[in-house]
Amino acid sequence: MARLIQAADLEDIARGAAVLGTGGGGDPYIGRLLAQQAIREHGPVTLVSLDEVPDEALGADAGGMGAPTVGVEKLAGGTEHVLAFQALETQLGRPLTHVVCGEAGGSNSTLPFVVAARLGRPLVDGDAMGRAFPELQMSIPAIYGVAATPLALADQQGNVVLLTAVDNRWTERIARAITIEMGCTAALSSYVMEGATLRRTLVPGTLSLCQELGQLIRAARARHQDAVERVTERLGGRRLFQGRVTDVGRRTETGFARGHATIAGVEDWRGQECRVEFQNEHLVAVRDGTVVASVPDLIIVLSSDTAEPVTTEQLRYGLRVVVIAAPCDERWRSPAGLALVGPRYFGYDFDHVPMAPPAADGRHGDSPAGRSPGRGPCVSAPGRRGRPSP
Amino acid sequence: MARLIQAADLEDIARGAAVLGTGGGGDPYIGRLLAQQAIREHGPVTLVSLDEVPDEALGADAGGMGAPTVGVEKLAGGTEHVLAFQALETQLGRPLTHVVCGEAGGSNSTLPFVVAARLGRPLVDGDAMGRAFPELQMSIPAIYGVAATPLALADQQGNVVLLTAVDNRWTERIARAITIEMGCTAALSSYVMEGATLRRTLVPGTLSLCQELGQLIRAARARHQDAVERVTERLGGRRLFQGRVTDVGRRTETGFARGHATIAGVEDWRGQECRVEFQNEHLVAVRDGTVVASVPDLIIVLSSDTAEPVTTEQLRYGLRVVVIAAPCDERWRSPAGLALVGPRYFGYDFDHVPMAPPAADGRHGDSPAGRSPGRGPCVSAPGRRGRPSP
Repeated sequence: MARLIQAADLEDIARGAAVLGTGGGGDPYIGRLLAQQAIREHGPVTLVSLDEVPDEALGADAGGMGAPTVGVEKLAGGTEHVLAFQALETQLGRPLTHVVCGEAGGSNSTLPFVVAARLGRPLVDGDAMGRAFPELQMSIPAIYGVAATPLALADQQGNVVLLTAVDNRWTERIARAITIEMGCTAALSSYVMEGATLRRTLVPGTLSLCQELGQLIRAARARHQDAVERVTERLGGRRLFQGRVTDVGRRTETGFARGHATIAGVEDWRGQECRVEFQNEHLVAVRDGTVVASVPDLIIVLSSDTAEPVTTEQLRYGLRVVVIAAPCDERWRSPAGLALVGPRYFGYDFDHVPMAPPAADGRHGDSPAGRSPGRGPCVSAPGRRGRPSP
Repeated sequence: MARLIQAADLEDIARGAAVLGTGGGGDPYIGRLLAQQAIREHGPVTLVSLDEVPDEALGADAGGMGAPTVGVEKLAGGTEHVLAFQALETQLGRPLTHVVCGEAGGSNSTLPFVVAARLGRPLVDGDAMGRAFPELQMSIPAIYGVAATPLALADQQGNVVLLTAVDNRWTERIARAITIEMGCTAALSSYVMEGATLRRTLVPGTLSLCQELGQLIRAARARHQDAVERVTERLGGRRLFQGRVTDVGRRTETGFARGHATIAGVEDWRGQECRVEFQNEHLVAVRDGTVVASVPDLIIVLSSDTAEPVTTEQLRYGLRVVVIAAPCDERWRSPAGLALVGPRYFGYDFDHVPMAPPAADGRHGDSPAGRSPGRGPCVSAPGRRGRPSP
């Protein structure tokens, strides 16, 4: 059912999106501020569910590309996102009827509200990943053969680039080079899809799930409940580790934020160590030398007390965190999905071991009946060793 | 007067263009082969003089961008140049009536024939520089405020990028990054201009001058005359140095071919040394520590015996060469021109000293009456010292 999203809703949505963003997807605070400002100036955004999207609809995503480490220093303005979206319309020669959310992530799930509010277009309640991923070809529509181009990039100076590439890998290569030259972050619109394709390929209900996660964290905090546990339950996930961050290695290279965090265990994990490696988003979690979760499953780092999602650029020494894993959209587990986003694509020499059977509807949902979503490893991969990031 | 250019004409044009290309502008052999093939398949190209271009004309250049060192290994195919030109038409929403030559250079003066032949469009007898320069903002139309964008880049895979930038420096930055990602060379169409602007800003007659230079070299060789002397005279230039190449330093970096050649003198220059530094094109000639010529004047390296133009990627140990300098189009000597292409732009700490007064018509022409175009230094710049390339 279509519903209106007001500025006040954005706090929950941004926080929930940062949970699903698995460390990436951009800063939730900056994205929220931009979306709230746009809604205050232009009125609320109409959020339509996927099954309400008509066949004759034409949608494209609106968001950002680049290194989150840069995005928190070189702040987006919002106008460049409108510029990119409109450039795509000009290229297509017809209006885009719907704004789409490309990925679940702190800013990439809130920037679509900026474009939707400023241009008065409905926003589709769904996304193309059910989480965030660092590269352009990594989307569920791409598994179905949807091309990422025509694609538009724009920067805050007003430079606009339109790209038509022969495949999505070339799209990623060329768009990444442009983004780096634009200052390591850029506004992006891509993956133009008609109504039927949107309905078939997107992950439904993502923005509502973001809002629900945000509400749930807020409510748990108010009631002094264990907010981390509520999030874990809602996502059908498992708690992998709890501890204090003792080391963070981070570098911005080839347009990405790459690095790792080392966490020293507390409580059940005292004496153990967990290493989380990332490329914009968390890629693998390695506990005492054993891989306990990997892409495409969601590896989520939350502040221990408040369940505040911790993006990779916020990771710092001393932070008390919980690492949880949650099952990805089941389409990521297909051979085509794993070719795009499995551990081997990112340079690891092991296959993906699903952290748990996907939820009954194939998406983030309640945990399957009879399975305890409590603590403890869900993936036991003896003999598979994490290796340093490529 | 409009005239037809046949495949047989291309050898002279390519050789003459490589003379004006001052070491850059792409390989004349490859450009010639592509142009001859296109003319054999699609018929001759109509070359129209600038004063025949009507007001309602719309022209854009067609050529290549990137490092010549790469261009001789990763050969252009010609189809990508048509793709870029047509992408620009699609972006503009109207046909381009004329093909323009962006710069005088071995391949950049022959690739326009490829596009003109394949698409059956007239080619304008002129160019935007009167020589070759390495960066996109370096054009005489730019001095008049003409924007380089909308600009299209295409590669042999079929990837196409359309760029609209806020100024020509941003155009250069972003287009260079794309070219590097496309493999260090790309097909380019840019500088869209209407008839009146073409007539006002282009250097007239460049392609005819290329052809004349080529004919002159061919005729001098046949008659066992001094072909180098004929070229020098025709351009109103001076012989700066003659000798053997004893050292070449060359690197392909940031998308350019950069480096230097050291030449040990013979004849009048025995015991002296000349160093020519380049970024795609020759930038400065330094003889025994004194700058004897610099951008924007043309520094041309020719094979001593045959006057065959030597591109920077052809420079090699033992080659016997003559270095000549010739005056540039006078518009390059304006403050705006020197800001774009003067020695200081390229990182040198000295100002341009014109090698000679420009020819009477402000272009490459006959040497002014009463001035001997013979041997000897034309620029005496004591106290000004060349420094290593930036």
